[in-house]
Amino acid sequence: MSQPLDGPRPGRRIFVTGAAGFIGSTLCDALLARGDHVVGYDNFSTGQEPFLAGARASPGFTLVRADILDEAALAAAMAGCEAVFHLAANADVRFGTHHPRRDLEQNTIATYNVLEAMRANGIKRILFSSTGSVYGEAKVIPTPEDAPFPVQTSLYGASKIAGEGLISAYAEGFGFHGTVFRFVSILGPRYTHGHVFDFYGKLLADPTRLPVLGNGLQRKSYLHVDDCVAALLLALDRAPAPFEIYNLGQDTYCQVNDSIGWIGDELGLRPTLEYSGGERGWIGDNPFIFLDASKMRALGWVPVHGIEQGVRLTLRWLRQNQWVLESRA
Amino acid sequence: MSQPLDGPRPGRRIFVTGAAGFIGSTLCDALLARGDHVVGYDNFSTGQEPFLAGARASPGFTLVRADILDEAALAAAMAGCEAVFHLAANADVRFGTHHPRRDLEQNTIATYNVLEAMRANGIKRILFSSTGSVYGEAKVIPTPEDAPFPVQTSLYGASKIAGEGLISAYAEGFGFHGTVFRFVSILGPRYTHGHVFDFYGKLLADPTRLPVLGNGLQRKSYLHVDDCVAALLLALDRAPAPFEIYNLGQDTYCQVNDSIGWIGDELGLRPTLEYSGGERGWIGDNPFIFLDASKMRALGWVPVHGIEQGVRLTLRWLRQNQWVLESRA
Repeated sequence: MSQPLDGPRPGRRIFVTGAAGFIGSTLCDALLARGDHVVGYDNFSTGQEPFLAGARASPGFTLVRADILDEAALAAAMAGCEAVFHLAANADVRFGTHHPRRDLEQNTIATYNVLEAMRANGIKRILFSSTGSVYGEAKVIPTPEDAPFPVQTSLYGASKIAGEGLISAYAEGFGFHGTVFRFVSILGPRYTHGHVFDFYGKLLADPTRLPVLGNGLQRKSYLHVDDCVAALLLALDRAPAPFEIYNLGQDTYCQVNDSIGWIGDELGLRPTLEYSGGERGWIGDNPFIFLDASKMRALGWVPVHGIEQGVRLTLRWLRQNQWVLESRA
Repeated sequence: MSQPLDGPRPGRRIFVTGAAGFIGSTLCDALLARGDHVVGYDNFSTGQEPFLAGARASPGFTLVRADILDEAALAAAMAGCEAVFHLAANADVRFGTHHPRRDLEQNTIATYNVLEAMRANGIKRILFSSTGSVYGEAKVIPTPEDAPFPVQTSLYGASKIAGEGLISAYAEGFGFHGTVFRFVSILGPRYTHGHVFDFYGKLLADPTRLPVLGNGLQRKSYLHVDDCVAALLLALDRAPAPFEIYNLGQDTYCQVNDSIGWIGDELGLRPTLEYSGGERGWIGDNPFIFLDASKMRALGWVPVHGIEQGVRLTLRWLRQNQWVLESRA
């Protein structure tokens, strides 16, 4: 069943859920740039109109403004597509306990809806953005895809593992061709949430002090969005059927304190750091995230942006796009 | 956080979903026998009235006839309970692809509803019947709880792993005390589906021939329902907080052909065996299921019924209770 394609086959019609999001909009731009047609689906609950300005100027792009829980709209929008990138999600790992139904609906049930809309349209190729959070507090680091069966520590991770399970069961039961990506945190232009966003917002409000969740020693790996999207495109062309999982992350990590240093350097600030204390920034926070991405590299993927560069480029983009901080306030 | 109790503390009020089912009704009887109060919840979609005849004769038993997707009824019924055994499920692993929504609703969303009803009532103790099917086609056999991160091969397994993830996330995020059991197939009195049921039904219709799914060489482990319920009670008393997973199975396995021999022997029949062929009986069937249950044994659990005895006792019970075959026809 392993049938990697040799390279891009431009001119396909690709469906992207979460098309107005950080990664989704960057993916749409990249697909259009190589000659694919794109149907972007988004309800703009967290997606941003300006992110699609470039895509919407392309004749190959169609925008469908609808909710992923609207099964009829979803199935209708998907008609004629060959492959689906399912990126729409509640991507907020920190506040799961504030609204547990959100992860269930936006991630688990939404993924089911996407799979059923594909079945209704005879589409079998799906690529899905899962998360390194599914490893919980991994015992093997760097963590490979076949790490010991983990215990979920967040509603977000639980909802993503539910989505992964659905896709692999559809691969087995319905002949789908599924590819799942377990991301570290993604950085770069159009970044709309995460620690760089939070720190920059806090320093805009008060440049003299910076409250930090945890003890600053949490170790995390990050990946630039362009490297992430390069992996998505490569996997669309090369990931074998029926089902494969790929970690996506840089082959290194940094401490939260390193990142604070780079952000302060970019801004020319030396704020007093006020740690909330403890190994974890929040309930379910994983104090050490570092994924083994050698399986994806074996497909030919070579990420080109380092973590420090990613943090600095993100901060520079945020400084030039302060409307994002306001739109998410 | 590890606080095992020393032994049973009778007189508690225990909530059991799927109370009219095979395992649920046997559990209700056992809880009542040791002096607990039981609130049994069932919609009787697959549950059987006669299974609760004994429990309903007990003053300690309350039956609530309602659906687990009815969130208000569920939360109201749970009031005053100390612990929840969540056994209600679509337990049909074979026909997931016939109705994918059923596993999503009856297993994943139902488990979410149970957890939210518990939150609404301030109940934190939950014990959940998952399945060895979550290991997919395990690479390590006998399979331990921390086997390599598996790929789901059935919608049933996918829905159960989603339920497990929700429970562990509630343990982390809301201070729940969760215990998950990954069962092999269960045998014994009140058995209402599975291979003994199917084979007996086929032989009643035609004693001269027996169609067998697959090649008969599939290796499976089975557990008697009394041994299963003994483990559930022991774990209620002894499984540590916040979250543990226990495999439940005998420390051996048999071939489907062995079981066919025992069934034929019980019935005095030597039917012609007509194999459908192939290693797997159905899409998503796992040709070798054998779980390492040493973690549960370390809690003090000693299963007493062997597999052959389990198959023979099941067949004898079915012969004396043919109404079950009719009610499930």
